[in-house]
Amino acid sequence: MASNGNGSLANGACTQGKPIKCKAAVAWGPGEPLVMEEVELAPPGRLEVRVKLLFTSICHTDLSFLKGENELQRKFPRVLGHEAAGVVESVGEGVEDLAPGDHVVPIFNGECGSCAYCDSGKTNLCGPYRVDPFKTTMTSDGGTRFSVVDRSSGDRRPVYHFLNTSTFAEYTVLDAACAVKVHPEAPLEKMCLLSCGISTGVGAAWNTANVFAGSTVAVFGLGAVGLAVAEGARLRGAARIIGVDINTEKFTKGKEMGITDFIDSKASDKPVHEVIREMTDGGVDYSFECTGINGVLRESFLSTHDGWGLTVVLGIHATPKMLPLHPMELFDGRRITGCVFGDMKGKSQLPGIVDKCMNGELKLNFDGFITHRMPFSDINEAIRLLEEGKSLRCVLHF
Amino acid sequence: MASNGNGSLANGACTQGKPIKCKAAVAWGPGEPLVMEEVELAPPGRLEVRVKLLFTSICHTDLSFLKGENELQRKFPRVLGHEAAGVVESVGEGVEDLAPGDHVVPIFNGECGSCAYCDSGKTNLCGPYRVDPFKTTMTSDGGTRFSVVDRSSGDRRPVYHFLNTSTFAEYTVLDAACAVKVHPEAPLEKMCLLSCGISTGVGAAWNTANVFAGSTVAVFGLGAVGLAVAEGARLRGAARIIGVDINTEKFTKGKEMGITDFIDSKASDKPVHEVIREMTDGGVDYSFECTGINGVLRESFLSTHDGWGLTVVLGIHATPKMLPLHPMELFDGRRITGCVFGDMKGKSQLPGIVDKCMNGELKLNFDGFITHRMPFSDINEAIRLLEEGKSLRCVLHF
Repeated sequence: MASNGNGSLANGACTQGKPIKCKAAVAWGPGEPLVMEEVELAPPGRLEVRVKLLFTSICHTDLSFLKGENELQRKFPRVLGHEAAGVVESVGEGVEDLAPGDHVVPIFNGECGSCAYCDSGKTNLCGPYRVDPFKTTMTSDGGTRFSVVDRSSGDRRPVYHFLNTSTFAEYTVLDAACAVKVHPEAPLEKMCLLSCGISTGVGAAWNTANVFAGSTVAVFGLGAVGLAVAEGARLRGAARIIGVDINTEKFTKGKEMGITDFIDSKASDKPVHEVIREMTDGGVDYSFECTGINGVLRESFLSTHDGWGLTVVLGIHATPKMLPLHPMELFDGRRITGCVFGDMKGKSQLPGIVDKCMNGELKLNFDGFITHRMPFSDINEAIRLLEEGKSLRCVLHF
Repeated sequence: MASNGNGSLANGACTQGKPIKCKAAVAWGPGEPLVMEEVELAPPGRLEVRVKLLFTSICHTDLSFLKGENELQRKFPRVLGHEAAGVVESVGEGVEDLAPGDHVVPIFNGECGSCAYCDSGKTNLCGPYRVDPFKTTMTSDGGTRFSVVDRSSGDRRPVYHFLNTSTFAEYTVLDAACAVKVHPEAPLEKMCLLSCGISTGVGAAWNTANVFAGSTVAVFGLGAVGLAVAEGARLRGAARIIGVDINTEKFTKGKEMGITDFIDSKASDKPVHEVIREMTDGGVDYSFECTGINGVLRESFLSTHDGWGLTVVLGIHATPKMLPLHPMELFDGRRITGCVFGDMKGKSQLPGIVDKCMNGELKLNFDGFITHRMPFSDINEAIRLLEEGKSLRCVLHF
């Protein structure tokens, strides 16, 4: 992976300790287009960093919260966005592992490195900084760092945070636990995909499932996360990667990304799990559910081989529907597990992955995921492309 | 573990190749008492062995099939029973690892040692000989080995098999894959508990969960399997073993068996998982569901620590109720898995465990499980004791 220019350095010297006025794409209400506002961003608090963002991209989770699909998601005004890359502008009290000028990738699932969870060696869910989709303020003081003048009242009001990150802004404040320092020469446009999509999918294959060379894999849902799972499985040497989707247009990109077989689940005259079991002499070793659809989860589970098949759930299941499995079905030796951020410990693992990409040891196909590039000001157009299934990742540059 | 007398040797010389007439406790219809009948037992077929049983005990699974709780369980007349120990009387064609006079323990979940499942190293579910509660005939030819004269018609009719074992009889025929040869000096009265209860519970702690020293464990349901889980956890050095039951009479035996804390779930004024989380600083490392009750399964799952807790499902869930979990609940890092026969590979693992018990390296408390002893002819009385929760294991001697 060649290095490329990362834009201007942070202007730490002149802004440190002071509020910054900058542009942010603010969500004012459910389903409304984002509005480009001048916001004020307070200096980072204790154990926080302020970051000048250079790139951000959009994920379906942003759209879900923008729409406010369920009650708990609705908290406005808010700065959404959680995939990005940038440069540290200043650091708050107590931050020891980051300094102004460091190149960082925000992570929505933080890693403090010192809580019982981080110490356990058994989970990537940090005690204080783990992903919490319903958290809207900073951990340290329960406040917001963004504020904006409300046009109707003329009053300055807080703008809420999102997923520990809030990257639809020129600058943001992150908990230091949620900012991963990467190789200074790494191209930040690509690094931005490590914030969520690629890390989640590749990590699901590497960490959660631990896909072995020669194994068989089924991926349900060929969006960015599904393709990243396929990428992770390909890099591990999976013999066969079966992609399942209702949108056959996704098969072209899927083929480019190394998926070996495709099933158009809408056109299949029998349940997909039966098709997969026939294709694979009893079922795949691993299946990955990347749709958030209850019935797809069941097909995904049943498509694995009895005795050892593992289903990894990556999709966000937003309905109240319970797991579509009977307890006795677990006795056939099929296993199921959830997966947050690909079981990646962001601060511990991502820098090493970036280094391996830089020295050529690891050939992660970042470019395959970037289908569009636009200026940040076109964010509503980028949202439309993702909603209509026309983009995989549209990277916005500031 | 001291050796003790194992009764008479098999009379292989005079019966080999011929049918044997012997006593069996035959189930004729759902809920009816077993009837002691003279049955005829054919010689073992290809890859089968005929075994003279010396001890058998009774498990709740036998009761469930005797009652015929659901349609698929009802197949009569049938010889139930799956916990036993005995001596090989004769072997069929192709049997190489067993010979007349060998001391064996029948296992309901066989191990052929050569199918794709046995070869995989990933499961204890053998392709041809795995547990199948709805199988009623022998694998080799789909026939039965038992027959009996029907009193009403006077005709000889087949008597169906049960769980690859059918041990409520003086002699039985087993697939060689379902007969584990044990140390000739091992006391068979105790060995009989390795057929199901002890292997399942201890194996769930050792193989499925891999309980580590110093960990916390909750066991839901303090029958023989639950107590065997506790025994397995105790032997692994678990720091705390919490027993949950609605029958406080079971706590006395539980204490004897090393359970450190008890929760009477009927008397608790808040959900048991909350009590357990308070007791254990967030939840246990492992929970074991040994009741087959849907709501208990949910409590068991929620009682584990987020991030790494594992729930092992051992209970037989006979109702159509689906898993009482939401897909998103998997994202808290709690895991759930089924467990058949404690993930023990019977023929590969049990002989070594017996050897360790014999040389004192392993101190499995067999005696703690045996609460009653009776002659085989009292089997209906033994069933009553188990149904009424008065016995843990009643060992019947022939």
